[in-house]
Amino acid sequence: MAKQALEFVGQNVPRVDGIEKVTGRARFTGDLVIPGMLQGKILRSPYPHARILSVDASAAEALPGVAAVLTAGDISDLDPIYNGRPVIAMGKTRYVGEPVAVVAAVDLETAQEALSLLQVEYEELSAAVGLDAALQKGAPLVHENSPNNICSHEHVERGNVEQGFAESDEIVEEQFTFPMVYHYAMEPHSVIAEFSDEGITVWSSAQHPFQVRADISKIFRISASKVRMVIPYLGGGFGSKSYTKFEPLVVALARKAKRAVRICNSVTESMLTVRRHAARIRLKTGVKRDGTLVAREAEIYLDTGGYADNGPAVTIRAATRVIGPYRFPHIRTDAYCVYTNSGSAGSFRAIGAPQVIFACESQMDSIAARLGIDPAELRLKNLLKKGEELRPKLKGMDADLPLSLKKLLSASHWKRRARQKDAPIGLACAVTNAGATPISVAMVRLQTDGNVHILAGSTEMGQGVRTVLSQIVAEELAVPLDKLRIGGADTKVTPYDSSTGSSRSTTLMGLAVQKAARDLKAQLSRIGAETFGVPPKQVRFQAGAMVCGEARLTFQEALARRFGGVLRSDGKIGSVGGELIGRGDIGPEVAPELPVFWEVGMGSSEIEINEETGEIRIKRFISVADVGKAIHPEQCAGQEEGAAMMGIGHTFFEQMVYEGGQLITPNLIDYRVPGFADVPEEFETVLVENHDGPGPYGVRGMGEGGILSVAPSVANALARARGVRIRDLPLTPERVWRALRESRKRET
Amino acid sequence: MAKQALEFVGQNVPRVDGIEKVTGRARFTGDLVIPGMLQGKILRSPYPHARILSVDASAAEALPGVAAVLTAGDISDLDPIYNGRPVIAMGKTRYVGEPVAVVAAVDLETAQEALSLLQVEYEELSAAVGLDAALQKGAPLVHENSPNNICSHEHVERGNVEQGFAESDEIVEEQFTFPMVYHYAMEPHSVIAEFSDEGITVWSSAQHPFQVRADISKIFRISASKVRMVIPYLGGGFGSKSYTKFEPLVVALARKAKRAVRICNSVTESMLTVRRHAARIRLKTGVKRDGTLVAREAEIYLDTGGYADNGPAVTIRAATRVIGPYRFPHIRTDAYCVYTNSGSAGSFRAIGAPQVIFACESQMDSIAARLGIDPAELRLKNLLKKGEELRPKLKGMDADLPLSLKKLLSASHWKRRARQKDAPIGLACAVTNAGATPISVAMVRLQTDGNVHILAGSTEMGQGVRTVLSQIVAEELAVPLDKLRIGGADTKVTPYDSSTGSSRSTTLMGLAVQKAARDLKAQLSRIGAETFGVPPKQVRFQAGAMVCGEARLTFQEALARRFGGVLRSDGKIGSVGGELIGRGDIGPEVAPELPVFWEVGMGSSEIEINEETGEIRIKRFISVADVGKAIHPEQCAGQEEGAAMMGIGHTFFEQMVYEGGQLITPNLIDYRVPGFADVPEEFETVLVENHDGPGPYGVRGMGEGGILSVAPSVANALARARGVRIRDLPLTPERVWRALRESRKRET
Repeated sequence: MAKQALEFVGQNVPRVDGIEKVTGRARFTGDLVIPGMLQGKILRSPYPHARILSVDASAAEALPGVAAVLTAGDISDLDPIYNGRPVIAMGKTRYVGEPVAVVAAVDLETAQEALSLLQVEYEELSAAVGLDAALQKGAPLVHENSPNNICSHEHVERGNVEQGFAESDEIVEEQFTFPMVYHYAMEPHSVIAEFSDEGITVWSSAQHPFQVRADISKIFRISASKVRMVIPYLGGGFGSKSYTKFEPLVVALARKAKRAVRICNSVTESMLTVRRHAARIRLKTGVKRDGTLVAREAEIYLDTGGYADNGPAVTIRAATRVIGPYRFPHIRTDAYCVYTNSGSAGSFRAIGAPQVIFACESQMDSIAARLGIDPAELRLKNLLKKGEELRPKLKGMDADLPLSLKKLLSASHWKRRARQKDAPIGLACAVTNAGATPISVAMVRLQTDGNVHILAGSTEMGQGVRTVLSQIVAEELAVPLDKLRIGGADTKVTPYDSSTGSSRSTTLMGLAVQKAARDLKAQLSRIGAETFGVPPKQVRFQAGAMVCGEARLTFQEALARRFGGVLRSDGKIGSVGGELIGRGDIGPEVAPELPVFWEVGMGSSEIEINEETGEIRIKRFISVADVGKAIHPEQCAGQEEGAAMMGIGHTFFEQMVYEGGQLITPNLIDYRVPGFADVPEEFETVLVENHDGPGPYGVRGMGEGGILSVAPSVANALARARGVRIRDLPLTPERVWRALRESRKRET
Repeated sequence: MAKQALEFVGQNVPRVDGIEKVTGRARFTGDLVIPGMLQGKILRSPYPHARILSVDASAAEALPGVAAVLTAGDISDLDPIYNGRPVIAMGKTRYVGEPVAVVAAVDLETAQEALSLLQVEYEELSAAVGLDAALQKGAPLVHENSPNNICSHEHVERGNVEQGFAESDEIVEEQFTFPMVYHYAMEPHSVIAEFSDEGITVWSSAQHPFQVRADISKIFRISASKVRMVIPYLGGGFGSKSYTKFEPLVVALARKAKRAVRICNSVTESMLTVRRHAARIRLKTGVKRDGTLVAREAEIYLDTGGYADNGPAVTIRAATRVIGPYRFPHIRTDAYCVYTNSGSAGSFRAIGAPQVIFACESQMDSIAARLGIDPAELRLKNLLKKGEELRPKLKGMDADLPLSLKKLLSASHWKRRARQKDAPIGLACAVTNAGATPISVAMVRLQTDGNVHILAGSTEMGQGVRTVLSQIVAEELAVPLDKLRIGGADTKVTPYDSSTGSSRSTTLMGLAVQKAARDLKAQLSRIGAETFGVPPKQVRFQAGAMVCGEARLTFQEALARRFGGVLRSDGKIGSVGGELIGRGDIGPEVAPELPVFWEVGMGSSEIEINEETGEIRIKRFISVADVGKAIHPEQCAGQEEGAAMMGIGHTFFEQMVYEGGQLITPNLIDYRVPGFADVPEEFETVLVENHDGPGPYGVRGMGEGGILSVAPSVANALARARGVRIRDLPLTPERVWRALRESRKRET
């Protein structure tokens, strides 16, 4: 294919949602008002583990203004379990915060008052809070039918790891821990539901509208066509709004109240709704003296909380991702998803990866130190080459990893800095097998006014998907961006899309939208060809029109040629009628082998250590993202930097702390997230564009990679500069200060 | 093409909107509640013709609860004229009831009170009420730039009519009048509008949503894509909700109020909003002694009221429709659309036809009487044969008219009755050149649950279009009706359709939907073929599945084959994803010559005359409709009978009476519409099915024809039985009694 200059793709065009957002006109679920809508509040379990003996709702129901109180007894006709959790606690509660009853009332105050009138009798049970408690012998069982509190187990094996260790010159074995962290999207989870004989309508902050639709369809035993999910703008997802959260509970409440009901979480409630899996990782690596990696063994425990959510999927991913981006002849990894009596963990940017990559990349530096090899050299030696297999049953590496690392080394002046002994610089490399399902359908519709509507079920959650999809259509049709319209997902209107997550939208919905645009283009070309009297191939598209020599036909004129005008009230032919519909669908054919693409994230940190306080700051952070092709380079950089900022959070201070089953960091004072003061002084993103991704123009997914390298690169910089290896996150000042003190003690 | 048995088409399946309607769940515009919606009321001119000197809204604006008062001064930035009328009276009012100001308030009571506080100073002008007043020399001009109050003029000519009359053996010349009548749809006009920076949304009882969209786009200088028209169920249209009514006024009010506003007309207000054109027709026909028609001359005046609306289109149609369904070598017709100071006339079932067909078919019997020929024979002799041209520039006759007449004669036992002298039986024949614009686009979307959604912009207004379109899709895909979903028009969702009117939906939207279904079928066939390992042609569709020998693949399974499942939260492959989109669009290619089809209506009446009171009742009414193919025979019969009932209304009692510019019959007591007591004792519809229409399965449009033959067949029956020819409608008891008395006087 001859390379053609791109007009829109690759340009930093203004965001199509920019004006709506900066003017405050953009509407989020919490902004919506549905006629007659009630306000709902959830009564949450105060115990981490308890039997529910009785719920007396009579006083609450009698309160004027209360429309309905829903308890487990009200859903006996439903199929109530989804993603391993019930619509509402049934018989038992398994974490502090689990919904036990829910009230719909005319306003929030009344709903809140009604909560205080609910009489729930509990029998407290001994709880298993945290991995240690849940895994110890004789631990209380969170689910009776899950022995040892194991929710799921994933095993990956290649070669013979015992033989590998036997052949190794050096073996490094370490244990790492990763804290429980929360996504902190600006918008907490918000849901409005309406239930009628015609069907169910849900407005929700949901990243996966079509999957929520499928769950609601199953739970309420109603065909999916009768469930309508409407997703306006979404105020940050990062996985916290993946899969179904409490939408079914709100639907059940609306069903009972016979009116629309809204429930908006507080930040505290959202922290109890979903979080990232805390992890404990034992990692053992065998290596030849020349730095050739030989064998890797890993044992990973992930704290999934009271219910599965997508813990099993996270566990599957972690078991592979712990291998890192390296060539290992011998691998054996085991990942365990562990039930504990705390709020459920779910998807979070690069599921399962930050935990295991912290371990993997810390250990790479431990190995380099043991062997006296430059950590960059060690990695370059072992990075998978294009086409090489990471492990069986996955597509070979589709990205040029050494190139990315070389770009990182160059941007971070690695060679110069690495010559300086004790220079506080560290790096880390990672790849992740994106879990993207390759199913997307889109439409591109030419309207009578010459505008082009893009119908795509992707959720705009700040990542800029509406802009990117618009750029693709603009490019394909050579139509200016101001002629394009794109909205949110509405399962009654926008075609099917499997999800917005797994870095998939630009690649997969991008392909569907591109196909739809090309389908529309083919229809237009035929009209143009007929008009110009040439074969369709000779019709060129330029600035919102078709051209052929001097002749020009705008899209609106093309509609008029195809359909003619409409009979007016005065009996004459009037305005242009008709429309042209382009459609595009993609399925498994775009990815005969999974993953659809490998996502690449590498980064380096130069840090500054305050010896007095133990506080570490990143002075300079370089992130390298192999994006295949950047449709919108600024948005790519923004994604990468946003991900790195999230990494800074779990690296230095973010940590959800449970004590006695209670979350004692349930707000943004006790749970600190990064702010502007934490932005590295120098913060650079290098985009690698090899046009080798499976998406349109060679795009591959990105936006998760940037989170992966922060913690290990900082830990590595600290280890390099001070000889102190910290294997537990976050690197709080106290923890660092203590480690430095211990190290000084050892030295003296 | 081999004839195949049809499974759904031609069957009287249950209406798909039946349950919603009989349970009261069906929602009409007036049932909708938009958050924050205000209630609007219109201040209407009390004068038929006046200059507006000033409008003082200050007291009304000061009333607590009033959000906005809109007057002409508020729309100076708009392009305010549409269909010849302004958004609101500008400087002058031209009929009693014309909007002069409009109020939006928190409730109707407040809005009503605010109206009483509006101070409008008028200078009354002399008015031209009715055709006689408007056409007399020196009549006041309704529009200064329309001399003689002529709004438009249509002239049809063929041959040389003077020569034709010279060659004729007999010449009959008569004058007929037809009253001003009102549609009386159960639901008066209702509109809700919302105006924001993002665009305009209008919920309306509109038959032509896309044309209203175009008008609003023009008036508010906003691209059509930013105007969203939503049409829920519509409670009867009959043309009264064709084109744009007061939607722009409500939009302008919402713009000023900065909130959604609803205005629902009362019946009185709707009568002032639109009606049928009163008419005066001078008709002259030359005929050979053997009954061969030679020449026709017609002069038609249509009272279009204060503004044009679609009076010009009605006038164009009347000038052709007055020719009747006959062969005339010489024709000259002139139709004039006349401004008068009364509420505007617009579309009404078979625009322009009942007026001129009353004249034409009455005169046919006058001629038969003059020549002593049986009226049926006279008609049979002169009816156009298939392919014959009615007049130049129109498609030749595409229906078998003699066959329809023979079916009417047979069903009415004409020969036997006609032998009886003075038998009170009469008949009438008509064709109309349907004004349907051939532009429709549709989608048929297969959903994950195996249901099929039909997206069509047709408005369900009782005619049964949702059922008929569902039958077509069911037939094409061999899918049971309960797997189909179809909703109302929403210009943001449903593809473009030029209108619901002119008997066009089954034929034209039917074709688009059929094409969309076939497009979906082709996609399914390819999946089936791949699954079964056969060529697509060998895949048969049966009971919602594809079959090949013993193998069977449901549509849902086909989706699963095409797209696979979605990655579940537990890491396994879960529910079916994806969807298949069929699209269909039709344009001028379906009708290289207009009309798209000829609509045929014939009927006979046997009447009973009360000599004492002059009251006439129809004992037996036979209607013949050539429908090409009846998709749903019962609905066809229902349409035909509904049309005949409307014909009974204007035949016997319906009449809007103006006195001094005031409508003195502004309610259902003073304006009587037919009720059950007026249903003929015997009421039969004969459907002619020659499969020769341009629509799917040979359908042609119907539903207007039944209104045409009632008045002339009754008048002909009266003339035949009592020798009394009444040329003015309605045939009130008083008018009939007087005529009978005159006739008896002459006899004695």
